[in-house]
Amino acid sequence: MGRVTERRKVIRIRDGAVTSRPDTLVAEEPLEIRLNGKPLAITMRTPGDDFALAAGFLVSEGVLAEREELRNIVYCAGASADGANTYNVVDVQTAPGVVLPDITLERNVYTTSSCGLCGKASLDAVRTSARWPIADTPPLRVGPELLASLPDRLRSAQRVFDRTGGLHAAALFTEDGELLDIREDVGRHNAVDKLVGRALQSGELPLSRTILLVSGRASFELAQKAVMAGVPVLAAVSAPSSLAVDLAAETGLTLVGFLRGSSMNVYAGQDRIALRATAAQG
Amino acid sequence: MGRVTERRKVIRIRDGAVTSRPDTLVAEEPLEIRLNGKPLAITMRTPGDDFALAAGFLVSEGVLAEREELRNIVYCAGASADGANTYNVVDVQTAPGVVLPDITLERNVYTTSSCGLCGKASLDAVRTSARWPIADTPPLRVGPELLASLPDRLRSAQRVFDRTGGLHAAALFTEDGELLDIREDVGRHNAVDKLVGRALQSGELPLSRTILLVSGRASFELAQKAVMAGVPVLAAVSAPSSLAVDLAAETGLTLVGFLRGSSMNVYAGQDRIALRATAAQG
Repeated sequence: MGRVTERRKVIRIRDGAVTSRPDTLVAEEPLEIRLNGKPLAITMRTPGDDFALAAGFLVSEGVLAEREELRNIVYCAGASADGANTYNVVDVQTAPGVVLPDITLERNVYTTSSCGLCGKASLDAVRTSARWPIADTPPLRVGPELLASLPDRLRSAQRVFDRTGGLHAAALFTEDGELLDIREDVGRHNAVDKLVGRALQSGELPLSRTILLVSGRASFELAQKAVMAGVPVLAAVSAPSSLAVDLAAETGLTLVGFLRGSSMNVYAGQDRIALRATAAQG
Repeated sequence: MGRVTERRKVIRIRDGAVTSRPDTLVAEEPLEIRLNGKPLAITMRTPGDDFALAAGFLVSEGVLAEREELRNIVYCAGASADGANTYNVVDVQTAPGVVLPDITLERNVYTTSSCGLCGKASLDAVRTSARWPIADTPPLRVGPELLASLPDRLRSAQRVFDRTGGLHAAALFTEDGELLDIREDVGRHNAVDKLVGRALQSGELPLSRTILLVSGRASFELAQKAVMAGVPVLAAVSAPSSLAVDLAAETGLTLVGFLRGSSMNVYAGQDRIALRATAAQG
């Protein structure tokens, strides 16, 4: 409860100076929403207001519209190894006599994502199901200067963004900074899937010697897509979530965030970042 | 194919001056991904590269990892009334002998959203399932000056954003601009669900006399959540998608985008915007 933010250690690079310190990240965890005991949906959310989130989700689904239709909302026992409540499963119980619409997963729930999910279990699932582990041999080494040059090249290569302001972009670069491919979509996860799908179609998986750059934020699902495609370095223009950092640390993915101008934060896999020997450790 | 952008008529307000002209919006449409003929997931995407999107999604799911495992990708006949192909259903066929992981909707697909979806059919579904139609009587009237003041109030009320840079926010205002509630989340849709769920829990649905403001973009799903909660005015700091505009126009929702400084675009429901009588129509 109240885990709106979490602290993680981060390497900060500013104009070539390197410091290490704890940073505050937005917390991201899966919430399973059940309706009268039956699993209905899983959403990646920031913990807090979970009962309101579940109730509002059911309003959006057309299940609930009045307070009287709601009997109770409770946390169910979660699935952590020690039997402790994870506070990531919520059951919404409707009042007697409430007629439920025909809600089935097949008809009512759509996905913007992939994966099994659910806290620790999902991290395990990704690790075991990744048929292309991150295996860059010899290890990829990229300098901060090269990384710093990528966002401008992404933007100059974007064809649609300037016209609508509504598109996310994802781009693949070689370890030397050469642009391999760029895709745009209203959903960032789709832009990444389009890049990965193209690579599959042309027989280029795993993407062991590439850098994946995404506009905006790095969520758990984007980190997972990078891992599944064998990408060793994921860089984002904006903030990563706590779960994205955890996944990167567990799988060996290098995760760079807040890539802006000559500054960036390295949240995991710092061994692939070629820092100058003179860099100070703060 | 190639429907990356679409044109819609928009009312532009700049420092009190009003003009009307066509605007370019990012296209957003549902894509149903089938695996060997069996529906697997629906994603809201920008049309184009659909085969790559489907293939990449299946890499992320751990279904495909090598080109040889892919036999074929085809468009299925869609569900438009005249029987024409909507190009919104894609079937991925795997090569003989490929062993599929145990992929079921229950285990592998999670949602960041609600709704039935699928082009025209989904607009109908929302309209019929909305038990609180937008019914502001007398009609809400808000001036551009009031709307222009809301983003600053949203930002000043945000508690977490400055610390992490990773949170979206949604806020409810009265028609007089008073802040009623604000929620933050790693997912914009969750922030809106939290607002709506709180309103349900306190017996305040429908939200007939409120303005919903969201950070970032206005997607179809956010417009839908507004409609389901009976909110008459949805304002976004950034761009709306084509499908969000279509849904707003069909349901009578007022949709404002690019709300920045003293300027904004009105994409639907302009009758609720109190424009000055002296305003010129360009």
